[in-house]
Amino acid sequence: MAIQYQVPLDRTFHALGDGTRRQIIAMLAKNGTCSATELCEPFDVAQPTISKHLKVLEKAGLVSREIDGRTHRFRLETTPMDEAEDWIERHRTFWEGSLKRLDGYLAKMEEPESEA
Amino acid sequence: MAIQYQVPLDRTFHALGDGTRRQIIAMLAKNGTCSATELCEPFDVAQPTISKHLKVLEKAGLVSREIDGRTHRFRLETTPMDEAEDWIERHRTFWEGSLKRLDGYLAKMEEPESEA
Repeated sequence: MAIQYQVPLDRTFHALGDGTRRQIIAMLAKNGTCSATELCEPFDVAQPTISKHLKVLEKAGLVSREIDGRTHRFRLETTPMDEAEDWIERHRTFWEGSLKRLDGYLAKMEEPESEA
Repeated sequence: MAIQYQVPLDRTFHALGDGTRRQIIAMLAKNGTCSATELCEPFDVAQPTISKHLKVLEKAGLVSREIDGRTHRFRLETTPMDEAEDWIERHRTFWEGSLKRLDGYLAKMEEPESEA
């Protein structure tokens, strides 16, 4: 079986695997758009650290950047989140199907054998 | 604002951010349970590499291991996947709400001013 590395999903899940980046996503989800300065405010870290997180989110396609002079404004892009959610949902459904088949199999095993 | 690092979610998203680990999850979702040997079959890598991936999945609570003599069998655990899906869903919904508010605001801006 050939293994396919679905690079966009790798990037999305990697980007979501950090509490600061999830907090940035939460702020953008709530406020629509935010400037880099606004996104730095709640964090007790230097602006370059937040800039690095924003670059990871941008590479994953989770945020887009609009540059207006010296101001960079960020906006949430939900397509990668939809794809990540779809992936999880699909495999959860597969698994629930497998459990149902297993239950059916066990129920059949427990049935008393019919007499000839 | 205090930043909370939700460590379990960090681990879940980190574990999902790798194509080999997602493939292992897909196999477990389809087959119910698999032995370590079965999980190695589709991959062109050494067993220790797959063992490492299984440990990452286990630490994230995405798989559980049952040891029967020399055979290790793995089973998918969906609770962390549910939590990851919930997180994405919640923030997508927030964002859709923000977009609706923005649309309402823009529509109001475009309304001709009523004459006095």
